[in-house]
Amino acid sequence: MNIGIDAHGGDTGTIEALKAVVALKDKSLDINYYLFGNEEEIIKGFEFLNYKINDKIKIIDAKEMISMNEHPVFALRTKPNSSIAQAGNYLKNNSIDAFISAGSTGALVALAQFYIKPIEGVDRPAVAVIIPTEKAPMLLIDSGCNVDSKPEWLYQYAILANIYYDIMFDVKKPTVGVLSVGAEENKGNALSLATYKLISENKNINFIGNVEARDVPYGICNILISDGFAGNVLLKTYEGVASFLLKSIKNGIKENPISMLGGLLIKPTLKKMLGKYDATVYGGAPILGTNKLILKCHGNAKCVEYTHTINQAIDLISKNIIEVIKDKYEV
Amino acid sequence: MNIGIDAHGGDTGTIEALKAVVALKDKSLDINYYLFGNEEEIIKGFEFLNYKINDKIKIIDAKEMISMNEHPVFALRTKPNSSIAQAGNYLKNNSIDAFISAGSTGALVALAQFYIKPIEGVDRPAVAVIIPTEKAPMLLIDSGCNVDSKPEWLYQYAILANIYYDIMFDVKKPTVGVLSVGAEENKGNALSLATYKLISENKNINFIGNVEARDVPYGICNILISDGFAGNVLLKTYEGVASFLLKSIKNGIKENPISMLGGLLIKPTLKKMLGKYDATVYGGAPILGTNKLILKCHGNAKCVEYTHTINQAIDLISKNIIEVIKDKYEV
Repeated sequence: MNIGIDAHGGDTGTIEALKAVVALKDKSLDINYYLFGNEEEIIKGFEFLNYKINDKIKIIDAKEMISMNEHPVFALRTKPNSSIAQAGNYLKNNSIDAFISAGSTGALVALAQFYIKPIEGVDRPAVAVIIPTEKAPMLLIDSGCNVDSKPEWLYQYAILANIYYDIMFDVKKPTVGVLSVGAEENKGNALSLATYKLISENKNINFIGNVEARDVPYGICNILISDGFAGNVLLKTYEGVASFLLKSIKNGIKENPISMLGGLLIKPTLKKMLGKYDATVYGGAPILGTNKLILKCHGNAKCVEYTHTINQAIDLISKNIIEVIKDKYEV
Repeated sequence: MNIGIDAHGGDTGTIEALKAVVALKDKSLDINYYLFGNEEEIIKGFEFLNYKINDKIKIIDAKEMISMNEHPVFALRTKPNSSIAQAGNYLKNNSIDAFISAGSTGALVALAQFYIKPIEGVDRPAVAVIIPTEKAPMLLIDSGCNVDSKPEWLYQYAILANIYYDIMFDVKKPTVGVLSVGAEENKGNALSLATYKLISENKNINFIGNVEARDVPYGICNILISDGFAGNVLLKTYEGVASFLLKSIKNGIKENPISMLGGLLIKPTLKKMLGKYDATVYGGAPILGTNKLILKCHGNAKCVEYTHTINQAIDLISKNIIEVIKDKYEV
């Protein structure tokens, strides 16, 4: 099994990805790691971690970087020596079985759409992210790739997510909802209403209808279908409000000695409770609908997220994910 | 001054609206309250509150109810004796200076659009809600009225909100942002990008560019412009995640005696901190761009929210809000 890792993407630089490789390296002897990035930095990084590189580790020197602000398609074309473009070649000729990156989502999706190509019957691959909820993890698709969408694309996401959710979580008939402004069937915009109609006509989908954003934390469905714009707004509000609120509570507690003592007493319970809502344990977000396995980590991914994502990749490769999706996908 | 109140709308029924009238009645002697709803219920409600009705209180018997699930325009037409339709007549012939309702947002917006009519130069009135933030309150428009929008409408929201924010908070040049999937100028969908262009060309607007949903809690701008679909998703995620998280923390704390003690110790600090994020203190959400003052309360509004909204209405009427908006509005 050959796993490609972007050692050039994300805000945390090369070292967090390398730490994960070091942590996992001796546990899975049949795995080769292909690290795409600045060769010197990677070598230095392993030295820093006191890790001796062996023949299971391949370094692909890719000095160019694609930033979050660049136009993805243009960047991919003009930076053939970027880690993402290089990994695209390795994916294409099957030198690697998966590619993990915390780099530009846009560039990864452009890679999936224009270099790797979508699987037959899929118009637009999209990133599916896990949102932890009170019940089962919820898979949100599209989380921000295709901001101007068509109902047919959203319908295709539902079918892809249906297959993926089963592979990931072993749930045969995951519940599927469409993100809307009200729970009633007639609530929504033109796009969501047309999507509702398409999905409701597919008897293989366990469709629960429209879902309001306020019900997401309660885990109202397993799969949430949205256009990339509203999906991105939902995801960023979810993450933003949660982290803001927890930070505010922490700061509030520091205000006086009594509340500080109180904070110490509730810490273990709070930690346990919040651990349930840690998205990184689910690994990376797949780009569904493309011909190769690409997993996107958070831009600020730390070692633990890379570790989970590598394990997830190993699992998905062993389950032959791309072939299963191709086989089961039917619009 | 004549203030109309929907005593038939909302989930909390008639009594919470009446409580607010009772609480405020003796404080502002020059105000008449017009209560639209089931006359018997209103009379019974005042009796329950031990309040003797005097000539400052007018009851307009409106027995029909418009539910949240009905088609707003159809409901208004077929239920002329609903509280909202009746209040529309009173607004039209200037018998009341404002109407406050916790009823169907759709019906209120339909009233504003088709019965009251928009002010000249406005295509679609929209509800503007306050989102409390770490800094100044943020006014989000559109919060869910027009789910399929045009850039021109969003541009008009920006001008309307600019005037309203100044009247409400005495801020001459409020900062305005466009909700998008990234902070960079080129990030967004066709609608948000076209809106960005229109707003950026108006030199009277203090435009800060695109705003990501994750920066909303930090109060990145005073006014946030969005289409009704994404705006509604943002608002409901914001409210949903915050209330869910606080509930989970409370439940977590109850798990064992030590964390319960801790919970008691942090309670005063937490209460103070969270008080900052109580949206009800800002009163109701205006339907901006229509020819009369209509203020929307939360569906589950309690007495305190009605009280704040009545005070807000008194303030806005005394500032001659509709005439000021008409006068300053220029596209």
